[in-house]
Amino acid sequence: MDGHGRFITLEGIEGAGKSTQIAPLAELLRARGLNVLTTREPGGSALAERLRALLLDPDNQGMSETTELLLMFAARADHLDRCIRPALAAGGWVLCDRFTDATYAYQGGGRGIDPARIALLEDLVQGDLRPDLTLVFDLPPELGLGRAKSRAGQTDRFESETRRFFETARAVYLERARANPERYRVIDATASLEAVTRAVAAELNAFVDSLESRP
Amino acid sequence: MDGHGRFITLEGIEGAGKSTQIAPLAELLRARGLNVLTTREPGGSALAERLRALLLDPDNQGMSETTELLLMFAARADHLDRCIRPALAAGGWVLCDRFTDATYAYQGGGRGIDPARIALLEDLVQGDLRPDLTLVFDLPPELGLGRAKSRAGQTDRFESETRRFFETARAVYLERARANPERYRVIDATASLEAVTRAVAAELNAFVDSLESRP
Repeated sequence: MDGHGRFITLEGIEGAGKSTQIAPLAELLRARGLNVLTTREPGGSALAERLRALLLDPDNQGMSETTELLLMFAARADHLDRCIRPALAAGGWVLCDRFTDATYAYQGGGRGIDPARIALLEDLVQGDLRPDLTLVFDLPPELGLGRAKSRAGQTDRFESETRRFFETARAVYLERARANPERYRVIDATASLEAVTRAVAAELNAFVDSLESRP
Repeated sequence: MDGHGRFITLEGIEGAGKSTQIAPLAELLRARGLNVLTTREPGGSALAERLRALLLDPDNQGMSETTELLLMFAARADHLDRCIRPALAAGGWVLCDRFTDATYAYQGGGRGIDPARIALLEDLVQGDLRPDLTLVFDLPPELGLGRAKSRAGQTDRFESETRRFFETARAVYLERARANPERYRVIDATASLEAVTRAVAAELNAFVDSLESRP
């Protein structure tokens, strides 16, 4: 291995099972001798978690699309500065539950913001940094929303969106994955928990193997 | 008068006296039969005031320039959506204590962010909207900081910046005023409170007169 850190993101609509998979994936990487940071967006740093609370708060329903977009990228900028970039610079592997693909899916697809505006903020905040590998957990929104609803607790500002919103978000994820097969792997998230765990482990092992086999 | 609202901003470094002048200026406009909204940035709407608290909190000292810039514009987007644009659309006059010139002065001048990045966010958030009149309260930073310190309370995250930071911010304000004399009026804020009040009242009356004299 080259000793460089790698940036891996997990994406998918509500109830796709990403958050459940992050701990076993971190274990898999640690078992292969790698240092791992697991984190999430929006959030991941102290300030970004405060912004996450504002973003998910159902009381902020009147927030405009542009405000939401800028808050997402403000949180991302802080998360990158304080967590992701330092971990990568130290040779760590970062597993992040949602990143900028979610902005393209939710704010771009779901809310209809021009992707060119998102790309402009992506460049401003990230510079050249993009994930090395993105796992897209794919399933129909009705199944995902059913799963999300069966979890305890109040519905957040995104979970209360319509099925149409999530269908558009799903379509954006699949379109991005199709356009860049080098970086994306689509996981069938309708399968059983065990089957999904096996599928993502296989993808991640194959990714690490491909780096180890490099001359 | 044409019945259109007008957007007037008050700018200047700490201790320049803007915030003291906003109430008498609002009175002056009301006495001339105009509807007036007085507001401030960062802040002005419920969400933006929550962001203001994050921006001024001395505990957030480690925030990067990019994060700060995006939070400023997120707050501005919400403030515009919920307060400024509706007031202007209803024919109201808006008096705002700080706006995007402060971003050019503080984040651009003070922190050294490329003004082109600020302009990009200005266009994204504001579209074509720019203030109709900007009063720049000008004074040397040592005088302004002395005044700000003599006020009660804790020093916020901006007030604790160095004198050099405020000198650069002042220079940016003056440069912007020089480049666009149609929109900007520079007020000598070293004068006594009464003299400053007279000077800004004269500028504002002249501005309203100029609109009334239009055919």
